[in-house]
Amino acid sequence: MKRIREVSLNGRMMSADEARVSPYDRSLLLGDGLFETVLVKRGEAKHIGRHTARMAASAEELGFATPGRVEIERAVREFAAEAGIKDGALRITLTRGEGAGVWPEDETGVMLLITGSEGIPYPPEKLKAGLTAAVVDEPRRTQGITARHKTTSYMPSILARRAARLRGCDTAIMLNSAGRVAEADAANVFVVKGGVVVTPPVDEGALPGISRGRLVAAMPDIRQAAVTMEDLAAAEEIVFTNALMPAIRASEVNGRAMRPGKFWRAALDILST
Amino acid sequence: MKRIREVSLNGRMMSADEARVSPYDRSLLLGDGLFETVLVKRGEAKHIGRHTARMAASAEELGFATPGRVEIERAVREFAAEAGIKDGALRITLTRGEGAGVWPEDETGVMLLITGSEGIPYPPEKLKAGLTAAVVDEPRRTQGITARHKTTSYMPSILARRAARLRGCDTAIMLNSAGRVAEADAANVFVVKGGVVVTPPVDEGALPGISRGRLVAAMPDIRQAAVTMEDLAAAEEIVFTNALMPAIRASEVNGRAMRPGKFWRAALDILST
Repeated sequence: MKRIREVSLNGRMMSADEARVSPYDRSLLLGDGLFETVLVKRGEAKHIGRHTARMAASAEELGFATPGRVEIERAVREFAAEAGIKDGALRITLTRGEGAGVWPEDETGVMLLITGSEGIPYPPEKLKAGLTAAVVDEPRRTQGITARHKTTSYMPSILARRAARLRGCDTAIMLNSAGRVAEADAANVFVVKGGVVVTPPVDEGALPGISRGRLVAAMPDIRQAAVTMEDLAAAEEIVFTNALMPAIRASEVNGRAMRPGKFWRAALDILST
Repeated sequence: MKRIREVSLNGRMMSADEARVSPYDRSLLLGDGLFETVLVKRGEAKHIGRHTARMAASAEELGFATPGRVEIERAVREFAAEAGIKDGALRITLTRGEGAGVWPEDETGVMLLITGSEGIPYPPEKLKAGLTAAVVDEPRRTQGITARHKTTSYMPSILARRAARLRGCDTAIMLNSAGRVAEADAANVFVVKGGVVVTPPVDEGALPGISRGRLVAAMPDIRQAAVTMEDLAAAEEIVFTNALMPAIRASEVNGRAMRPGKFWRAALDILST
């Protein structure tokens, strides 16, 4: 993954060195932003409509101003074309603009930033190997409004990933405040137990992921239900999904080795389109 | 409160317009930063040693690189002097520098930003009037590691403040996942009931605030114990503290009017030094 040196800032392409992000930007100061990570395949920003729809819905619910989906998608197309990404990823960051105070006293502004990288995020050999995972005790995912939106207040996931790395693992499985499985540190989680596929519902602390939504729509047998630590321990398969993977299996969870299974292969087939 | 147009970026003073914050800064993208808000009185950054000690301890525990307390305090003194703040506030923001990915693959960098404003944050008339408060149901404060550190992943507090404003109140009182009181949206909370002063302990989701710590040290009768909604409803006084206030009373909580009390006056006396 090679970082693209151009960025799109408020709808204008420029080099990253030229880009002037305000020292008063509310996402820099307070994590007051939203983001989307989008897979780019042969120059095409995959499922861009789903990503901008989610961002727009979150912006609406959390009271963000936004340049609107049409303008965001235009900026994304321009970025992908001008930056010349073939296979890689791009990221859309929308912030509440400049402002001090927990809640801005004046009307809120808006800052739209698009950044990207070149290189397939999860090439075949990585997908084949899978990820080693550790269930971390802290931080926990909340089950409320913050869990339902992809905000730039991402510290819980960062610290979960760090805890997993300190245990020699690739990724963390995070619990909610009740001690049940919420999601991975940057992916949704699907658990196969006794042949039944289960994924935690949003009110258990799962982000409503784009790939998760596609998979649930494509496979009506998937159950959305609480997943316990005991379910994890007894699982035949554990599979992670996010927009970049799009489906990768756990090769090991808390030291227990796991083999590739049927559900993972089916999920990868569905999500690779 | 008038925003100071100069900032200190990585130890160098410059105008805010000149300051170039990277579009890849991890606090901008992921809320991967720490911050301190410091009261400035007659040109002096109050209790700066306590603020930098807390920041350094958080940096250590969360695996941040830091320029060190000596350099941060030097930059703060330079900022306060060159920006010419007399009475106001300054803010220290420390981020993990540039980097993509939930956990940075390479060694982490560091970005130190100091910003400020001129004007007494809570002048006497504001302190006298108090704050109207609403207990909000969402978002909840976690009781774990993220609650113990003052990170730039501040979205839960932002959304709590917004919920309070939508109910016509100045500030929010936030609950933890068990439904007990954790803190206000940007302040600790002290509750007087039957003449006994109680404040939620850190493991109930309270940030270990600088003013809170000073008050607890100065008044040994303050109990650190769980505070329930029933305690709030029966309280004679509810007092908020943070570094900028430093103590302000609730004039109203969930519509119930409250009068100024002895504890608030004592706390204000202690914290105004």
